[in-house]
Amino acid sequence: MQIAILAHEKFPGRAKTALGVLRYADYDVEAVLDRDSAGDRVADHVSDVQDAPIVAGMDDVDADVDALLIGIAPIGGGFDESWRDDVRTALERGCDVISGLHYFLEEDEEFAALAAENDCELWDVRKPHDELTVADGVAGDVDAEVILTVGTDCSVGKMTVSMELARDAREAGYDAAVIPTGQTGIMIEGWGNPIDRVVSDFTAGAVEEMIVEKGDEHDYLFVEGQGSIVHPAYSAVTCGILHGSMADQLVLCQEAGKEAIHGYESFEIPSIPSYVDLYEDLAEPLSDATITAGALNTSHLEDDEEARRAVDEYVETLGAPASDVIRFGTDDLLEALLE
Amino acid sequence: MQIAILAHEKFPGRAKTALGVLRYADYDVEAVLDRDSAGDRVADHVSDVQDAPIVAGMDDVDADVDALLIGIAPIGGGFDESWRDDVRTALERGCDVISGLHYFLEEDEEFAALAAENDCELWDVRKPHDELTVADGVAGDVDAEVILTVGTDCSVGKMTVSMELARDAREAGYDAAVIPTGQTGIMIEGWGNPIDRVVSDFTAGAVEEMIVEKGDEHDYLFVEGQGSIVHPAYSAVTCGILHGSMADQLVLCQEAGKEAIHGYESFEIPSIPSYVDLYEDLAEPLSDATITAGALNTSHLEDDEEARRAVDEYVETLGAPASDVIRFGTDDLLEALLE
Repeated sequence: MQIAILAHEKFPGRAKTALGVLRYADYDVEAVLDRDSAGDRVADHVSDVQDAPIVAGMDDVDADVDALLIGIAPIGGGFDESWRDDVRTALERGCDVISGLHYFLEEDEEFAALAAENDCELWDVRKPHDELTVADGVAGDVDAEVILTVGTDCSVGKMTVSMELARDAREAGYDAAVIPTGQTGIMIEGWGNPIDRVVSDFTAGAVEEMIVEKGDEHDYLFVEGQGSIVHPAYSAVTCGILHGSMADQLVLCQEAGKEAIHGYESFEIPSIPSYVDLYEDLAEPLSDATITAGALNTSHLEDDEEARRAVDEYVETLGAPASDVIRFGTDDLLEALLE
Repeated sequence: MQIAILAHEKFPGRAKTALGVLRYADYDVEAVLDRDSAGDRVADHVSDVQDAPIVAGMDDVDADVDALLIGIAPIGGGFDESWRDDVRTALERGCDVISGLHYFLEEDEEFAALAAENDCELWDVRKPHDELTVADGVAGDVDAEVILTVGTDCSVGKMTVSMELARDAREAGYDAAVIPTGQTGIMIEGWGNPIDRVVSDFTAGAVEEMIVEKGDEHDYLFVEGQGSIVHPAYSAVTCGILHGSMADQLVLCQEAGKEAIHGYESFEIPSIPSYVDLYEDLAEPLSDATITAGALNTSHLEDDEEARRAVDEYVETLGAPASDVIRFGTDDLLEALLE
């Protein structure tokens, strides 16, 4: 599928979704829309993702594209009216539009009418489907080995780790798939339930539904984790994913040097061994998962040697193989995780 | 406030909400609607709740009532069309209607029109309000001591224990309030957030909002718990309540002899000491709650001596005071919980 990505005024630094899609998705990205950098190329800004021209708007996209993907989100998740022309043009050209905004495009009268007229789909990634329900407790019955990323906090790299592990496992010849649980993961994979938006009673059920759907088709499922089990706001989602997935193995993700919960600085990050106990003890009655490997995000450390030392220290504290998967690769982790 | 309770064909055995309201709410119940038992009185069927006549329908309610409360729920939570006449009559008489059904009365065209016409309120207890958001992590800052009931499973008596403890604490002269989290609790208290129906990301936030609202007005808050921390479907809600409430003390509720998770019989109930560790370890990084007391539901044991032995055994296993609060009262628990 060929797509364009809207990232006005935010590419690449504040366009996490756009970057995730460029890095991991199977789409051919024909253009990035950013009126501030029109004329540049993606490669002028980021080196390790697929390249594409940066253009000022949808009118300047010459290639045939199947969809326009909204690759940024303003604070609050609203729709920025300065994007309306681009979305309108896309729909008039017969493109689908993929959005992870809180503002649902299918509830926008103009877009809904244009989509109907031009036979296009408006895919609001953040809108849970209507048939979700409570878990049956059967995720443990699937054939696949289920590997879940868990974290010490939000934004420590759980999605990236799941994506890197699944991709490298596939490249090594294993049959592996990702179970996406958040908006960027869902956009990358092209399907999935937005777990943080479902009715709280259905949290585990919405994960289980995905595990059951894919669990007999693959040998390994890498489940994208969310939040942290001691996060003051998001622990419910984390707990629901742990039990809904009935994971067999866990990968504990941490950011080097992190000491307090981001945005909740009065709460200290517990020690790594206490996270190991918390996650394993909580999983035990349902799936007996163990933390088999760790991932340390060292992106803010400039020096490679310092990063290496931080990883070595993490390995020792964790008592399991670990790596910064972007900086040092996934070999040690995959050796521990795959049979 | 004077109310009538609709409980057609289900009173009292299958009318849990009706019974909870009769037992704990401050309402004056003027009538119970059950066409199967019309002519009886509540006292003919249940001895320890307020008495009221049982009538065949709203037309037979002679007293002035302010509201009709739907006190039963069919499987699936739909609206039973055989109740339409009663709801219509109530609205025509100017009564509000209180419902915990999944089917929202305010979305029913006839009821919405009648309510507008007669200046009545349709209160769909299960519909979360629109301003819920993520937790700020501040429930621990309130003045009140926060006491949460937690359980080994669903339906072991958490709501009943919270209600009994709060009522008896008030009768002993303490300033205590209930924080309701489920539909029956909300109907009894006349306010509250239906935690199992909120967006999963807002689970802790919806609890925190209530704690912050009441936390400086009372000395003790008894928070109604939900589910169990190792429940295959509902653990997310349990975890969100634990962290959103930032409880100071926990009361572990169990049903005598329970060995497997109800409806998920392939999952054994862990040992009582492992529940203690799970709940306390998970609470520790945010609020350092301890399990100070226990409650054992012995309602299915006919013999009082057998029930007493079961409670004694539970006290020993738990290492804390415990009781069947209905059978043996709350004295031991309140002594442990209140300063």
